[in-house]
Amino acid sequence: MTGRPSRRQLFGYAGAAAAGAAVTGGAIALGNDSATRSSTAGDSAADGGTRGNVGPYGDHQPAIAATSPRHAELVAFKLLGGTDKAALGRLMRLWTSDIVALTAGRPAPGDTAPELAIPGVALTATVGFGPRVFTLTGLTDRAPRGFIDVPPMSHDRLQPTWTGGDLLVLVGADDAVSVVHAIGRLVADAAPFAKPLWRQTGFWNSTGPDGKPITGRNLFNQVDGTGNPAPGTPDFNSTVWNDDGSTTLVVRRIKLNLETWDELTRSEQERAVGRKLSNGAPLTGTAEHDELDLEARDGDNRLVIAKNAHARLSHHSENDGRRIFRKGLNYVQDTGATRETGLIFLSYQANLVSQFIPLLTRLDAADALNEWTTTIGSAAFAIPPGFHEGGWLGQDILN
Amino acid sequence: MTGRPSRRQLFGYAGAAAAGAAVTGGAIALGNDSATRSSTAGDSAADGGTRGNVGPYGDHQPAIAATSPRHAELVAFKLLGGTDKAALGRLMRLWTSDIVALTAGRPAPGDTAPELAIPGVALTATVGFGPRVFTLTGLTDRAPRGFIDVPPMSHDRLQPTWTGGDLLVLVGADDAVSVVHAIGRLVADAAPFAKPLWRQTGFWNSTGPDGKPITGRNLFNQVDGTGNPAPGTPDFNSTVWNDDGSTTLVVRRIKLNLETWDELTRSEQERAVGRKLSNGAPLTGTAEHDELDLEARDGDNRLVIAKNAHARLSHHSENDGRRIFRKGLNYVQDTGATRETGLIFLSYQANLVSQFIPLLTRLDAADALNEWTTTIGSAAFAIPPGFHEGGWLGQDILN
Ligand code: HEM
Ligand code: HEM
Repeated sequence: MTGRPSRRQLFGYAGAAAAGAAVTGGAIALGNDSATRSSTAGDSAADGGTRGNVGPYGDHQPAIAATSPRHAELVAFKLLGGTDKAALGRLMRLWTSDIVALTAGRPAPGDTAPELAIPGVALTATVGFGPRVFTLTGLTDRAPRGFIDVPPMSHDRLQPTWTGGDLLVLVGADDAVSVVHAIGRLVADAAPFAKPLWRQTGFWNSTGPDGKPITGRNLFNQVDGTGNPAPGTPDFNSTVWNDDGSTTLVVRRIKLNLETWDELTRSEQERAVGRKLSNGAPLTGTAEHDELDLEARDGDNRLVIAKNAHARLSHHSENDGRRIFRKGLNYVQDTGATRETGLIFLSYQANLVSQFIPLLTRLDAADALNEWTTTIGSAAFAIPPGFHEGGWLGQDILN
Repeated sequence: MTGRPSRRQLFGYAGAAAAGAAVTGGAIALGNDSATRSSTAGDSAADGGTRGNVGPYGDHQPAIAATSPRHAELVAFKLLGGTDKAALGRLMRLWTSDIVALTAGRPAPGDTAPELAIPGVALTATVGFGPRVFTLTGLTDRAPRGFIDVPPMSHDRLQPTWTGGDLLVLVGADDAVSVVHAIGRLVADAAPFAKPLWRQTGFWNSTGPDGKPITGRNLFNQVDGTGNPAPGTPDFNSTVWNDDGSTTLVVRRIKLNLETWDELTRSEQERAVGRKLSNGAPLTGTAEHDELDLEARDGDNRLVIAKNAHARLSHHSENDGRRIFRKGLNYVQDTGATRETGLIFLSYQANLVSQFIPLLTRLDAADALNEWTTTIGSAAFAIPPGFHEGGWLGQDILN
C-alpha cells in the first residue's frame, strides 16, 4: 500500500462502493486514515492483555488482544430464511446493547436472570459473520479480503456438528456461570433471526501460581502461544488487523489423543514440536522466548528442531513471513465412559487466504503432531471492527 | 447411642468384626472415641470452607466441608473382574499418594505431564465406594449403615450413561486444566483395577464480586445452598458424619429446562421454591438466612410459601428433622446445536436410607420444580473417612 489508502483499502473489504454510507452516526473513529490507524489506540485492551474488565468499546473487538479468559463458550448460528441485511442490522443493534450491559456486569435488556450478571469477571464478547452473510443482497462485496471457508485438508475428519456457521458469538469470562448466562441472553435475542448450529465450551489458564500472566498450556502439556506476535506490537497489528479494524477468525475443533500422546517419552513429545515441555523454550535455547535456531545440528549432524517439527513448519521464517495469532481453548467433552479432550484452536489473521490457509496446508502435509491430533470441526468468520459509545457492531458493513 | 460406643458403632459400618485390625500404622486418629469425635477437629477445612489449599489430610475427606471449587470433574468406575479387596487396597494406596502430591501442586508419582501440577488452585479429591464394593469377599459387612442404591423415582428418566458406579473420584479446583490433569492421573493409576463408567464436569461460583464467599447460584438463577447446615456446626456434623468419619454421597444428574423456566414470571419462579430470586430470602423474610415461616398467609389467606414449594417440602421441620448437605455443580453439555444444562446434585448425609431417600421420595411426589427438571443420572457412594499423614484412603475398611 503506497500513499493515501483508498477508501476500499481503508475498509479492508473486497469492495466498498457503499462504504461512504457506512460512516454515519459518527460513532466509529474513522477519521484517521493514516497507515498506523490499525494500532490499538482507543482499544481498552491496548496494554496487550491485562486480566480485568476490558470493556465493550474499541477500534477492534476488544477481547481479541486481551488475555485469554478462564472459560469461554462459542455459539455458531444458522441464519433463518428471512434474515436479510436489514434484519442482521437489527440483531447487531440488539447484541451491541446486550454486550455493553453484560461486559459491565449489568443485566442485558429484558434479562430473565438479571442476578447472574455480575461485575469483576472480565466478561467479553466477540461477534463474527460466516461466509453466507456475504451472499446476502447488499453484502456480496463486504467480506474482508481473502475471506473464504477453509478448504478440506487431507487429515480432516470434520463432523457436521462442529462445522460451519453464519454467525458467531464467542463469550469469555473468568467465571463459567457468567459465560453461560451471557450466551443465554445473546442466543435468546438472536431467536427471531438465527438459531444455534453448534456450541463449544473451553477453558484456559493464563495465570501462574504467583498471579503473574503466563502463556498457558494445552492438554498435551505444551506451552502453547509462545510464537504469537505480542498484542500491541507492530507485528501483531499487521498480522491481525485490516485497515478498517476487522479481522478473520478460524475455529478448528481438534481432538487431542491424550492416551497415545502419554505413551511417548518426554523427548519424543518435545521433538514433535521442537520445543521443551518444561518452559516452552526451543530445543535450541533455554528461555521460552528465545529465537528458534532452525539450522542447529546435534553431534550426529541431525537437525535439533526436526524437519517435521510443528514449530519449524509453522514458523514465519519458513512461511514467507506469514503469521497468525492463535488463542487456544482446552476442551473436555463428557460422553459417558469415554471423554473427548482437545483444543478449540482459534486463529486470528487479517487475511485468511494469504496467511492461514498456506500454513494449514503445510502442516496438514507434514506436521509431526498429526499423529496425535484429529480436526473434527472447522468454521471461518469475518470479525467486524469494534464499536465506540453510541455505535454498534458491524455498523460499517450493515448500514 | 448411650455410654461408650462400641467399636462397631464407632466405625459406622454395618458390621465391623474385623475393624480392630484396621487400626494399624497408627496413622488414623482413632484414639478419641468420645461422642464429639466427629467434629471437624483436625480437619484442614474446619473453618467451614475457606477457599485455598485445604490439604489432603483430615478425619474426614477434606473437600466435603470446604467451599465448592470453581470446577470439578467426577469419574465413576466399574471394577474389573479381578479386583478384590486386596486389589482395591492397592489402588487406594496409589490414589492416596497421588492425592497427597496433587493437592500440594506436585506431580503424581509417574506423572506424564508434571508441569500441569500447579500449586495455588485449591485442588481437592474425594473418593467413594459404590454398592458393589460391599459385595466383595471380606467387605459385605463394611458399608455405612443405610447405604443402598437410590431406588427409582416416578419422575426419573435415568440414562445408563450417567448411572451407577463401583468407585468414584471427585476432583475440584479453581482451575479447569488442573482438574483435567489430576483426573487423568487418577484414571491412569486405576487402569489395572477399574475403568471409567461415566464422567461429569461442572462448575460453581462461590465468590462474590467483592471477593467474599457467597452461596452461589444454579442455572435457574436460584441462590442454592442456603438451607444447608453450616460446616463446622453441630447440625452439620450430625447431618454428614458417621462416628468413624465416613459419610455417603448421592450424585444425581438433573437436567434443568432453562427454556421453559425462562417463560415463567419472576413471581412464578419464586413461588416454585418459596424463596426470592434476588437474594435467596424466604418469601416470608428479607435476608437470605431468615428462617422460613411455613405458616404465614397472604391477604387472601393463602400460604405464602406454597404447599408444593421446593423449600417447604424439603425443609427439615416438615421432614421429621431430616437434613442433608447439598453441593451443586452447574453443568453445560455441548451436543451440537442444542446443549443440555443442569445441576450435578450432590448430597452428603451420614445415612442415605434414613435421611436422603425419604426426602427424595417426598419431592418426587409433589415438588413444584419437577415441571422444569428431569433426573437423568443417579449414583450412590460410601465415602470413607479421611486419612492422616502415613495413612491411606479406605484403610479402615480395606485393611
Ligand atoms: C493440532 C493441534 C495443535 C497443537 C497441539 C499445537 C501446538 C503448538 C505448540 C505447542 C506450539 C509451540 C509454542 C508456540 O509457539 O505457541 C505451536 C506453535 C505454532 N502453531 Fe500450533 N498447534 C496446533 C495446531 C496448529 C494449527 C492448526 C496451526 C495453523 C494452521 C498452528 C500454527 C502454529 C504457529 C503459527 C505456531 C508458532 C510457530 C512459531 O512462530 O514459532 N498450530 N503450536
Ligand atoms: C431439581 C433440581 C433442584 C434444584 C434446582 C434445587 C434448588 C433448590 C433451591 C433453590 C433451594 C432453596 C435454597 C436453599 O436452601 O439452598 C433448595 C433447597 C433445598 N433442596 Fe433443592 N433443588 C433441587 C433438587 C433437590 C433434591 C433432589 C433434593 C433432595 C432430595 C433437594 C433438597 C433440598 C433441601 C433439603 C433444601 C433445603 C431446604 C431448607 O432447609 O430450607 N433439592 N433447593
